[in-house]
Amino acid sequence: MTTPLFDTIALIGIGLIGSSIAREIRHKHLARRVVVSTRSEETLRRAAELRLGDAYTTSAAEAVHEADLVIVSVPVGASGAVAAAIAGALKPGAIVTDVGSTKASVIAQMQPHLPAHVHFIPGHPIAGTEYSGPDAGFIGLFRSRWCILTPLPDTDEAAKAQLRRFWEALGSNVDEMDPGHHDKVLAIVSHLPHIIAYNIVGTADDLETVTESDVIKYSASGFRDFTRLAASDPTMWRDICLHNKEAILEMLARFSEDLAYLQRAIRWSDGDKLFDLFTRTRAIRRSIVEAGQDTAAPDFGRHANDPVE
Amino acid sequence: MTTPLFDTIALIGIGLIGSSIAREIRHKHLARRVVVSTRSEETLRRAAELRLGDAYTTSAAEAVHEADLVIVSVPVGASGAVAAAIAGALKPGAIVTDVGSTKASVIAQMQPHLPAHVHFIPGHPIAGTEYSGPDAGFIGLFRSRWCILTPLPDTDEAAKAQLRRFWEALGSNVDEMDPGHHDKVLAIVSHLPHIIAYNIVGTADDLETVTESDVIKYSASGFRDFTRLAASDPTMWRDICLHNKEAILEMLARFSEDLAYLQRAIRWSDGDKLFDLFTRTRAIRRSIVEAGQDTAAPDFGRHANDPVE
Ligand SMILES: NC(=O)c1ccc[n+]([C@@H]2O[C@H](COP(=O)([O-])OP(=O)(O)OC[C@H]3O[C@@H](n4cnc5c(N)ncnc54)[C@H](OP(=O)(O)O)[C@@H]3O)[C@@H](O)[C@H]2O)c1
Ligand SMILES: NC(=O)c1ccc[n+]([C@@H]2O[C@H](COP(=O)([O-])OP(=O)(O)OC[C@H]3O[C@@H](n4cnc5c(N)ncnc54)[C@H](OP(=O)(O)O)[C@@H]3O)[C@@H](O)[C@H]2O)c1
Repeated sequence: MTTPLFDTIALIGIGLIGSSIAREIRHKHLARRVVVSTRSEETLRRAAELRLGDAYTTSAAEAVHEADLVIVSVPVGASGAVAAAIAGALKPGAIVTDVGSTKASVIAQMQPHLPAHVHFIPGHPIAGTEYSGPDAGFIGLFRSRWCILTPLPDTDEAAKAQLRRFWEALGSNVDEMDPGHHDKVLAIVSHLPHIIAYNIVGTADDLETVTESDVIKYSASGFRDFTRLAASDPTMWRDICLHNKEAILEMLARFSEDLAYLQRAIRWSDGDKLFDLFTRTRAIRRSIVEAGQDTAAPDFGRHANDPVE
Repeated sequence: MTTPLFDTIALIGIGLIGSSIAREIRHKHLARRVVVSTRSEETLRRAAELRLGDAYTTSAAEAVHEADLVIVSVPVGASGAVAAAIAGALKPGAIVTDVGSTKASVIAQMQPHLPAHVHFIPGHPIAGTEYSGPDAGFIGLFRSRWCILTPLPDTDEAAKAQLRRFWEALGSNVDEMDPGHHDKVLAIVSHLPHIIAYNIVGTADDLETVTESDVIKYSASGFRDFTRLAASDPTMWRDICLHNKEAILEMLARFSEDLAYLQRAIRWSDGDKLFDLFTRTRAIRRSIVEAGQDTAAPDFGRHANDPVE
């Protein structure tokens, strides 16, 4: 057995992301000891049943006091309160990181509370599913995915290298960028797609001329893809919208402008314009598949799950 | 071996849909003889290599003259020309159907050409993938999916029952509705999702602040789902936009109105409104999975395709 990367890791929040990290740590022996903390007794009990850690507590402060690495995995709107709760208990030299989907806001919320004697290195693994809670996590979630770190100026190089090694051990590629750029990139690749998906599912639900039964029965023609994103956790997504407002509004404006152009092309039956747009979008799909970020199997390989006749 | 449903079936167009039908006919012995016709020599040769039929011709008229069932599977904008080409060669009593994604327009294009001595019963299987051409087809595509027939008034009941049995033999459930309702339903469940997907991929491609490399690397956070739809065949989708204009513009208007409301909620940080919308969309996802129209596996079961470590 190799020496673990950390002696004690504290996981604050043990839902989809926290519990996937917990499973990886155990699977790969990345720590001698894992302390799990979550807000509710119920989730904590479930985490214990799943044997996600070595110790369990609803007190975040208690969880962190021996930790060399603290990973905060809660909705982004809760990160300030968590930082305030753990600040006084943190061990000098500890690395504190998070997995939140927005970065400028998390930094603004957490940094003021954290003592100078810890290394605060915000992060965001670009991996997830539409499910939540400790049962939703699994080994392999982070494999071949990117993890973005948004370190503050003057971050300790050794601490950063250590956190990088951690994510690499989980199978991720690690990138660094500034928080503002992260928030813009995620606004277009993640936040806008989810908002659009929530919106179109809402629109379909409200129509008078098309029934819900119609929508459900014929959803395999495209709609069902959007319902997956629109089944994501409402708290997480409310918080993301509230905490990455500027970038999201900027991307929404661009999207709406482009949609007006497309709408006009449809209204005026401009087949050439439509054909052009519908052609150039194929190249991006190809690049994503080539980059190993999606499967080339038709329909995401759904048919691979079909019963054989 | 059971008696085949039809003596001779002619397939006009042998792409994803036509070739999937061909594979099912052979697999289930639904016809004694299958004649395959397509516009280009190249596709015809490929169809022959794949042994999709018993005879092959680029002449649609030649293909249909002995057929009891003719299935037209070409882009909807081409259906009028195909009807004109086959009209004079059709056998009395033959059933003529299609698989086009729009119905009012296909009827308007085809019906004027077709002789009174054939049964024209328009149809649309609600099944597909993002791939095209004869190699993209497969057995099972129509299984557990719906096929919508939009018969004209006074359609022969026996002919309709016969066509229903055909689709049921392919594993589909068959529904009937009027063409106008079909076009509205499909505008929301299929056409709008594709148009939105094409649009957002276009928007991402045009941004100055976010590079294409950023978009590709971090696409697993939501964006990649849209790129699948946006990789669909440009000709097919141009034709759908041109041939279901009214219904698509109506749904686009509703979508944009709802998006403006959501945008306002983000701008004014109205967390409750956001939470409400993000909550009610989950029920539809659940119904779709319960109706057997999508997999419950996280991420469409993509991880099932992952290599194990
Ligand atoms: N889901 C994804 O696809 C994904 C991907 C990348 C990053 N992220 C980010 O990862 C973080 C966690 O997401 P997740 O999907 O793991 O969420 P999750 O499955 O819903 O789990 C959330 C965890 O946070 C705790 N929590 C919820 N509200 C809290 C509050 N107000 N104060 C303190 N703790 C609270 C929950 O505790 P109790 O159950 O005990 O209440 C639970 O332990 C979020 O910041 C999200 O933006 C998510
Ligand atoms: N793809 C889906 O998901 C899906 C689902 C349900 C219904 N549909 C509908 O099914 C029909 C066929 O779609 P598909 O996906 O099978 O398309 P596809 O794979 O692109 O195949 C198209 C076929 O139509 C022929 N064709 C193309 N343009 C033509 C023209 N102008 N005149 C005559 N023939 C022409 C092609 O012939 P050559 O290759 O020889 O040029 C080929 O045989 C469309 O109406 C579509 O709306 C599609």
